[in-house]
Amino acid sequence: MTQEHPVYGRIDGPIVIIGFGSIGKGVWPLIERHFDYDADKLTVIEPDAGQANFLRQHKLNHLQVALTPDNYQEVLGGLFPDGKGFCVNLSVDTSSLDLMKFCREIGVPYIDTVVEPWAGYYFGTTDNAARTNYALRQAVRDEKARNPGGTTAVSCCGANPGMVSWFVKEALLTLARDTGRDATPPTDREGWARLMMSLGVKGVHIAERDTQARRLPRPRNVFVNTWSVEGFIAEGFQPAELGWGTHETWFPESGHRQDSGCQAGIWLERPGAITRVHTWCPTPGPQFGFLVTHNEAISISDYYTVGKGANPEFRPTCHYAYHPCDDAVLSLHEMFGSGQQQVKHHILTEDEIVEGIDELGVLLFGHEKNALWFGSRLSNDEARDLAPYQNATGLQVTSAVLAGMVWALENPNAGIVETDEIDHARCLEVQRPYLGPVEAHYTDWTPLQDRWEHFPEDIDESDPWLFRNVLAS
Amino acid sequence: MTQEHPVYGRIDGPIVIIGFGSIGKGVWPLIERHFDYDADKLTVIEPDAGQANFLRQHKLNHLQVALTPDNYQEVLGGLFPDGKGFCVNLSVDTSSLDLMKFCREIGVPYIDTVVEPWAGYYFGTTDNAARTNYALRQAVRDEKARNPGGTTAVSCCGANPGMVSWFVKEALLTLARDTGRDATPPTDREGWARLMMSLGVKGVHIAERDTQARRLPRPRNVFVNTWSVEGFIAEGFQPAELGWGTHETWFPESGHRQDSGCQAGIWLERPGAITRVHTWCPTPGPQFGFLVTHNEAISISDYYTVGKGANPEFRPTCHYAYHPCDDAVLSLHEMFGSGQQQVKHHILTEDEIVEGIDELGVLLFGHEKNALWFGSRLSNDEARDLAPYQNATGLQVTSAVLAGMVWALENPNAGIVETDEIDHARCLEVQRPYLGPVEAHYTDWTPLQDRWEHFPEDIDESDPWLFRNVLAS
Ligand SMILES: NC(=O)c1ccc[n+]([C@@H]2O[C@H](COP(=O)([O-])OP(=O)(O)OC[C@H]3O[C@@H](n4cnc5c(N)ncnc54)[C@H](O)[C@@H]3O)[C@@H](O)[C@H]2O)c1
Ligand SMILES: NC(=O)c1ccc[n+]([C@@H]2O[C@H](COP(=O)([O-])OP(=O)(O)OC[C@H]3O[C@@H](n4cnc5c(N)ncnc54)[C@H](O)[C@@H]3O)[C@@H](O)[C@H]2O)c1
Repeated sequence: MTQEHPVYGRIDGPIVIIGFGSIGKGVWPLIERHFDYDADKLTVIEPDAGQANFLRQHKLNHLQVALTPDNYQEVLGGLFPDGKGFCVNLSVDTSSLDLMKFCREIGVPYIDTVVEPWAGYYFGTTDNAARTNYALRQAVRDEKARNPGGTTAVSCCGANPGMVSWFVKEALLTLARDTGRDATPPTDREGWARLMMSLGVKGVHIAERDTQARRLPRPRNVFVNTWSVEGFIAEGFQPAELGWGTHETWFPESGHRQDSGCQAGIWLERPGAITRVHTWCPTPGPQFGFLVTHNEAISISDYYTVGKGANPEFRPTCHYAYHPCDDAVLSLHEMFGSGQQQVKHHILTEDEIVEGIDELGVLLFGHEKNALWFGSRLSNDEARDLAPYQNATGLQVTSAVLAGMVWALENPNAGIVETDEIDHARCLEVQRPYLGPVEAHYTDWTPLQDRWEHFPEDIDESDPWLFRNVLAS
Repeated sequence: MTQEHPVYGRIDGPIVIIGFGSIGKGVWPLIERHFDYDADKLTVIEPDAGQANFLRQHKLNHLQVALTPDNYQEVLGGLFPDGKGFCVNLSVDTSSLDLMKFCREIGVPYIDTVVEPWAGYYFGTTDNAARTNYALRQAVRDEKARNPGGTTAVSCCGANPGMVSWFVKEALLTLARDTGRDATPPTDREGWARLMMSLGVKGVHIAERDTQARRLPRPRNVFVNTWSVEGFIAEGFQPAELGWGTHETWFPESGHRQDSGCQAGIWLERPGAITRVHTWCPTPGPQFGFLVTHNEAISISDYYTVGKGANPEFRPTCHYAYHPCDDAVLSLHEMFGSGQQQVKHHILTEDEIVEGIDELGVLLFGHEKNALWFGSRLSNDEARDLAPYQNATGLQVTSAVLAGMVWALENPNAGIVETDEIDHARCLEVQRPYLGPVEAHYTDWTPLQDRWEHFPEDIDESDPWLFRNVLAS
C-alpha cells in the first residue's frame, strides 16, 4: 500500500539547502515529497566533494563551495535573484545569524536547526561566556528585537532544539488534563508560562536515550555518532549550560550567571559532554545523561518565565540530559581520556544499524504527578520504512525542519521566531507521521532514588528536583 | 607441531580448586598440563549448578557447595585428610584469610588471586575504611607477622594483583640497564626499594587496556566483562584507593590516611569505578583509566618503601588505572547512571570475542626517561591457541596462578607471601609462554599533556607526575 503524502504548498522560486550532511541529505526527500516546487531551481551548497556523486546522480544542482563571512552574500544573492524561494540551512561552520539576516533582507524565508557560528568560533576563543549558547541565542533575540516582523526566519527548528518545544506544550496540556485542570491551549506566551507555573512544574529535562547500534565493535580513534560528529564535539566542548529555575536554592560552585539579555540561563566552567546528570527515559528508566549545552535549555526557560530578568516570579530549570548511542559514549570516553579529538568521524547509517531507537522527549518534573516524559520513540527500522537516507535520529530532525517550513509558508511575515513561539499543534500535525510512537509516561522516579549507599554525596533531600541532586557526583 | 609443556613437579595428595568461574575453569587445563598428580584426587568446590555438566563430562569431582564461615573447616578438612596436596582458591565470597589460615594449620599449600572476604562484606558495612583493600591486606600481613614461616600460602597471585609485581621488577632492571646503571637484581626487599628510589621512579600505574570485543551490541541491563562481573562490581564499589608516594605535595579533598599497619595507602570517599585517572598504554596512548582499588596498589607501595610508617624516606605512588573492555565501560556507565546493579552478568568467552587484546602492564613514571610501560599484550586469538577455556584476560591470571603454584612447590615452607616477595624471575619464566608479546615501551607522555584548553583544571605544573594531575577533572 502506497502511503499518502500530503503536499503542503508551493515554494515559489529557488530552494537552497546549505549543507548536505546527515540532516541535509535526509531533509531533501521530505521536501521533494511534501512541497510543490520547480526541481530545476533546487540547489545544494556543499563544500564536501564526497557528496558530489550522489548529488549528480540525483540531478541536484551542486554548488561546491564553503560559505564564509566573505562570500555568503554573493553566493546566496546569486542563488536568490528575486527575493523568493526558501533557504534551508543545515550546515556547520556558518553563521546562522548572518545567513538569516541576509535572507530576510532579500525577502527569502529561512530555517535552521541550531544557532551556528562561523568556523573557528567554538575553539577560537578562551572566553567561555562568549562560547555559550546563551550568547549565540541572545544575538538572534537581539536581532529580532531590533528588526521585528518581516520575512519569516525560523530559528533552531530541528528535533532539539525544535520539536521538543512542541512536546513541552503537548506535555503541559496532557498534565493539565490528567490533573483535572482546564486543558484549553493558551493563546500567548504569558498564558503558557502561567499554565506551567500553575501546574507546579519545576523544570524540564530534554531527556534522550539513543539505543541505535551496529554489529561492528567501535573502532579505536573514530568518533561514532548518529548525527553530526563535528556538531556534537563542538557543543560537547562548550560549557555545560542550563536554564536556571526559580525553585533552585543552591548554586553550583563553578556556575556563572548572565548579566545582560533574558538572564534565563547559567553556565558551568566545565565541558558539557563530561558533565553527567541523573535523568529518566522510558526504555532505560533512570540513566546518566550528559549536560550538553543546547539552545532549547535557554529558550524554554526563557519562554516559560513569569516575570523578567534575574529574579522572575517563576522560571523552570531546563537542560539537555543526553545519552547518545553507546558508540558515542565510548567515543567521548576516548576523546576526554586522550585529550585529543578523533580525526576520523563516522555517522551510523540507517543500513548498518541493526537495532535501537532514538527516544527523545521532555521530562516535566516537580509537579503533583512527580514527572511526565513525553516524546518520540522512533526506531531505526521504522525510520527506514518512512523515508530514505536517514536513521531515526535524522528523521526526528528532518521532519521538524519540514514542519517548520510548512509553518513558515503559512506564516510568511512572522519575523524571526523560535519554535516555542510558533503553532505547536500545526507543526506536530505535519511532523507526527514521522515520529513513530509518541507517548506520555509518568514515573515516580526522582534523582534521589538509588543513590550510593556507601559514599557521601552533595544532595539536598528537602526537594528531590533541585539541580544539586540532578548533577551527578 | 605439538608444543612442549614442561611438567614442573608432582603434587602429592588432593588438589582442590575452589570456584570454577572464568578463572577456575581456565586454571584447570594448566594444572593438568604442568603438574604430575593423581587425577582422581582433584576436586572442584563450586556451588553453581551451571558448572556441573562440564565437570561431570570431564570426570572432575564436583562438590556442589558454597563455602561459609560455618562449613569451610569441615569441607576442606574432609578433602585434605593427610595435610598434603594443594588448595587453589579462585572463588568469590570466601574469606581468603580464613581459608589460608586453615590450610596452613593442616599443612596444605595454598594460593589465591585476591584477598577476598566472606559474602556480604563488600556491601554489608557503611564503614568505608573497613571496606578498603588496605584493611583486607593488612589482616593477611598481620597474620604473617603473628605466624611467620610454615606452610607456603601465596596471597594474591593472579595477573593483578600478582604478575604485575614481577613486571615492576623487570621494568626496574630494564630501566637500570637503559640508563647505564648496574642492573644486577637486588637480593632483598630493601635492595629493590633502594633501586627504585635511586632510579628516580616516583610511582607506578598498573596501566591496563582491554580491547576485547564481540560483534553483538551490548544488551541493556547486562553487565558485560572479560572476567568476574561480581568481582569487578564489588571492587568498583569499594573506595578508590592508592599507595601514596613521598613525592606527593597535595592531598585529595576526600582522602583518608591510615592510622595503623604499614600506612602505605590512602583511600578516597568515592567508588573507584567512577573515579577516572589519566594514564597511558601502548595501544591507545593516553587514555582514561578507572582508579579501582586493588591489593597491589598497597603492596607495591609498601614493598618499595625506604623507611617506615607515615613518613618514610621514599615511597612510590601506586594505583590501578584500568580501562576495561568497552562493554564493561558501558556497563559501568549504565550501573552508576541507574544507581542499580545489573542482575544479568556476562563474561565474554574466548569464542565470541572477535578482536582485541588485554594489554596489562606497569607504567613506571617520574624518572629520567619519563615513563616506561612494561607488560603483556596478549590477544584473545593467541590465548585461544595457547590454552582452552579462557580469553586473554583469563590466561594472564591463570598462568600467574600456575607460576605461583610452581614456586610454592619449590618453596614449600615460605609461610605467607605476596608476589612482591617471591622470585620474580622464576615466576616469569614459568608464566611467559602464556603472555604473548611482553614488551617495554618508553613514552614522553605525561598527565599534563593535552589538557582542556578552555576550562580551568586543578593541576600543578611544577611536577607533571603528581597525583593531583593524574586524577581527572
Ligand atoms: N536541532 C537538532 O535537533 C539538530 C540535530 C542534528 C543536527 N543539527 C544541526 O544540523 C547541522 C547539520 O547536522 P548534520 O548531522 O547534517 O551535520 P554533518 O556534519 O553531517 O553535515 C554538515 C555539513 O555542513 C557542511 N559544511 C561545512 N562547512 C560548511 C560551510 N562553510 N558552508 C556550507 N556547508 C558547510 C559539511 O561539509 C557537511 O556536509 C549541524 O549544525 C547540527 O548541529 C541539529
Ligand atoms: N588477581 C587477578 O588478576 C584476578 C583476575 C581475575 C579474577 N580474580 C579473582 O579471582 C576470583 C575468581 O574470578 P572469576 O573471574 O573466576 O570469577 P567468577 O565470578 O567467574 O567465578 C567465581 C566462582 O566462585 C563461585 N563461588 C561463589 N561463592 C562461593 C563460595 N561461597 N564458595 C565457593 N565458591 C563460590 C561462583 O559460583 C563462581 O563460579 C575472584 O575473586 C576475582 O576477583 C583475580
